[in-house]
Formats: sequence, structure tokens, C-alpha cells
Amino acid sequence: MNAEEIFRNIKRKKSFLCVGLDTDYKKIPKLLLHKEYPVFEFNKRIIDATQEFAVAYKPNLAFYEMLGAAGQMSLEMTVSYLRENYPDLFIIADAKRGDIGNTSHMYAHAFFKTLDFDAITLSPYMGYDSISPFLEMDGKWAILLALTSNEGSSDFQQLQIDGGKRLFEEVITTSAEWGSVNNIMYVVGATRAEALSGIRELIPEHFLLVPGVGSQGGSLQEVAEYGMNDRCGLLVNASRSIIYADVTNKFEDAARKEASKLQVQMEEILRQRNLV
Amino acid sequence: MNAEEIFRNIKRKKSFLCVGLDTDYKKIPKLLLHKEYPVFEFNKRIIDATQEFAVAYKPNLAFYEMLGAAGQMSLEMTVSYLRENYPDLFIIADAKRGDIGNTSHMYAHAFFKTLDFDAITLSPYMGYDSISPFLEMDGKWAILLALTSNEGSSDFQQLQIDGGKRLFEEVITTSAEWGSVNNIMYVVGATRAEALSGIRELIPEHFLLVPGVGSQGGSLQEVAEYGMNDRCGLLVNASRSIIYADVTNKFEDAARKEASKLQVQMEEILRQRNLV
Repeated sequence: MNAEEIFRNIKRKKSFLCVGLDTDYKKIPKLLLHKEYPVFEFNKRIIDATQEFAVAYKPNLAFYEMLGAAGQMSLEMTVSYLRENYPDLFIIADAKRGDIGNTSHMYAHAFFKTLDFDAITLSPYMGYDSISPFLEMDGKWAILLALTSNEGSSDFQQLQIDGGKRLFEEVITTSAEWGSVNNIMYVVGATRAEALSGIRELIPEHFLLVPGVGSQGGSLQEVAEYGMNDRCGLLVNASRSIIYADVTNKFEDAARKEASKLQVQMEEILRQRNLV
Repeated sequence: MNAEEIFRNIKRKKSFLCVGLDTDYKKIPKLLLHKEYPVFEFNKRIIDATQEFAVAYKPNLAFYEMLGAAGQMSLEMTVSYLRENYPDLFIIADAKRGDIGNTSHMYAHAFFKTLDFDAITLSPYMGYDSISPFLEMDGKWAILLALTSNEGSSDFQQLQIDGGKRLFEEVITTSAEWGSVNNIMYVVGATRAEALSGIRELIPEHFLLVPGVGSQGGSLQEVAEYGMNDRCGLLVNASRSIIYADVTNKFEDAARKEASKLQVQMEEILRQRNLV
């Protein structure tokens, strides 16, 4: 999928919502626990309930890895289910990988071939050859951590570099040269909305993946105000506020309502900017 | 395992060798391919052939993830096999993770409980709360990327920060405060041996995990010269040069010979410093 196709899906669905599948086994409604793969069963129902309002899904790998081989199976089944039933959805592996070249080639194979993800989140710390293997397949994306939504983002990401830039700005300007607007995105936390306008000066055209709206307290209005461009340029992620909106057997309705609420706000924002 | 116990094992085995299990399915000798889990079978034989000369093993997660659920099974079986048969070995997950706090808690659970690793490699880019969940369990270790062995390490790790330090030095001094010499190590590539003496000034006591000897061209002598301290303070990793020393049915003998060769060199170095 290229940037134009992502934008086309955003216009069609009037939404730039990404649903984070941070599926915690302990929070799955009891009625699903007798299934062979409760995590997959939960994901399937969340996807069916919310897909109308979303353009992307983002399984968070940690939640699958902590279940061992069963978690890996649930992950594979989730990606296949999305791919087969909703081929227009953009599927992101929230994996935050990053390793030396020959290992990164392995990861690229793992996420883009063994599993059929469209994109993977990556840590930039190890530099060019840790990222480039993810840029070699048409239609596949590397999503680099730039300025994250957590407290620790001030420890290193915001350090001032000789010459005036901060580290996350240096990461953005350097890495933007490694690929194009059709295979690189950046993670910028919604809790750092004020930084988005500065980032837009560095990379006006790139898509940004913005976590932190919802449970983490970021504001959708502010994210749009400072970060939106003329092809939307944003995928805004919400995880816990949608998938755990209710933990009884009404979880699907509740998730649908939360996703719909965000979609309505997103449609309003897109209309104000004449993008739909 | 704490630092003193690691040093005790180093003295007993007269070796500070870590064997990297970067087990590529495509390079496994044909005679193992009919087994249900060829990757585990290969690892088991490599471990049996080399354990006499090593104090640590380091599966590289990418190689297991690219095989999906079967890879996950091979990984679990490898860790269990090490734990049950050679309880003194230190087992490192080369995973290079790093995520926001609640996700890092999941990863800590995945690697330290679901799997019984002693340590995990982590990327420091997201700061304190991405690392601290790995420091909460007694005897378990976080191994932070500092200065890696790949070309891309010059892109960001070596940037000059306002105030004079380089980024990897800032990472080391800041993060050393988060834990102790008993739960934090650092990755410093053998190809950057000249930087080791500067790093030793910042952290005289910490263990360093040093990849890059062997196939990547780093020198064991130089690493020891600049990086060794009075409790050794080094785990030097070799992967491909040992496990793929021969790809015929003589692979075990060849791996054993390579591991033994490194152990002999290490013993000589330890003797020169009166550590054994």
C-alpha cells in the first residue's frame, strides 16, 4: 500500500483511526476463555465490531510474545483474518525492532513474509543498516520511533545535539533520506502535540503514527491542529480505550461505540479541512 | 545470577565466551532437517559440543520469529534445554526491545517468566520507563545497546551532545543510575575496541557484552586490552564463526574446535591479568 492508497481509504472511511490490538489475556471476557485461541477470538470480534470506523490495526507484539507459541499462533491468525476479510486495512506490527543488517533482514522476512504485515515500528538507535532492510519491499513500510508518548522520551530523544537540533529531529531529518513518503512513517506521541508543528516543518509530507490519544491523555484536536497535512498525514492510534471499553459480554458494542465516537470526531476534523 | 556468580563461572571455565545462537534454518546440516524441530536439534547439538568452553548463550530472536510458531517452540525448547542441563550458563535473549512502561512489563514477563532468560538486550531510545520493568526481578538483567558493531552506529550513537558527551556516553552515564552492576550491562561492539577505554572510565565495574569478534572482524586482544576489568567484566560473543564453522555432518566437531580455540585465547588473557 502506498501513501496515496492510505489517503484514499481515509477519505472513504472518513477516519484516520488505527485500533491498537494490545490484547491482554487477563482482560479478555470470560465467555471467550474456553476457545482454543481466546486472544485471536477476542481480536476477531473487536475487528468485526470496529473495522467500519478504522483504517488500520496495530497488534502490539509484546502481548503475543508473553503467551509463547500460542500467542504467536493468535498473532498469525489475526493478521490472516484481517488480510482475508478486510483487504483495505493497513496492518502494523508494533514491534519496535532494530538490529544489525543481517538480523534486520531476518526481521523483515519475519514480519513482511512469514507474517503479512504492511508495516513495522522500528527503533532508530542502530542507524541506517538496521532500517534499510525494511525499505526493500514494495508497499511495505518502516515506522521509526521519533518522539514517543512516554515520560522517558525526555531522557534521550529530546537531548540537544551540537548544531542545534534535538535528537528526535536529527533522527527524522537523517532517516527521511533513507526512503520516501511511500515507505517511511514516524511515531510521534499525542502527548507531545506541541512538537508536531516543528516536525511538520521538517517532514511536511510524511505520514505520522500517533499513539497516546485516549488512555494516555493526548488530545485528538491538538494532534490534528499541529500535525495534519493536505493528505491527512496522520494515523491516530487508540488501544485500551477501545478494546477494553467494557470487559463483560457487551465488549463488542462498547468497543464499537468508542471507535465510532472517535470516527465522528475525525470526520468533523477532515471536513473542516476540506479533506472529505 | 549476579555479577559475582558470572565472574565465578568465568574463573571456573577460564572463558568469557558467549555463543550466539543465530540459527538460520537454511544453514542447518541436512541430516537434521527430518526432525520435528530442526532448529532446536541443531542448537542442542551445538550447545552440547561447545558448553565446556562457554559461560553464556545468546539466541538471536529474529531467527526464531521468522519461523513463526515453530520458531517460538524451538526457542522455548532451547532455553529449557540449557536451563535443565547446564544450570550455570547465563542465557541472553538478543531481542533489542524497548517500549512504553506497560508494554515493557509485558516483555519482561515474556522473557523472564514465560521464557526463563537471565537477560535481554534493550534499545535505550525510549528512556527510563522502557527499561525499568526489566530491573525489577532479582537476578535478571537488562543489557542496553550503547555503541554497536554495525556501520549505522555512527548515524546517531556517536552524535555529539551539547555539553561534550556523545550520545552513547550519555546513554551509559544516565542509565547506569537506573540500576546496579548486578542488573545492567552494556553492548559495545568489538569493532569499536578503541572506544572501550573511554567507556571503562564511565563505568569501571559493569559487565559489557561484546559482539563482533569473529565474522564481523573485531579483535579479542584489543577488546581485552581496553575493556577488561578486575572481575573480567566482559562477555565476548561469537556466533557465525562457531555455529557455522562447518555445515556438513561434522558441524559439531568444527563448532567445538572454534569454541575451544577462543577459550584457549581467553584463558591466556585471563592468566596474563592474574584473574585465573
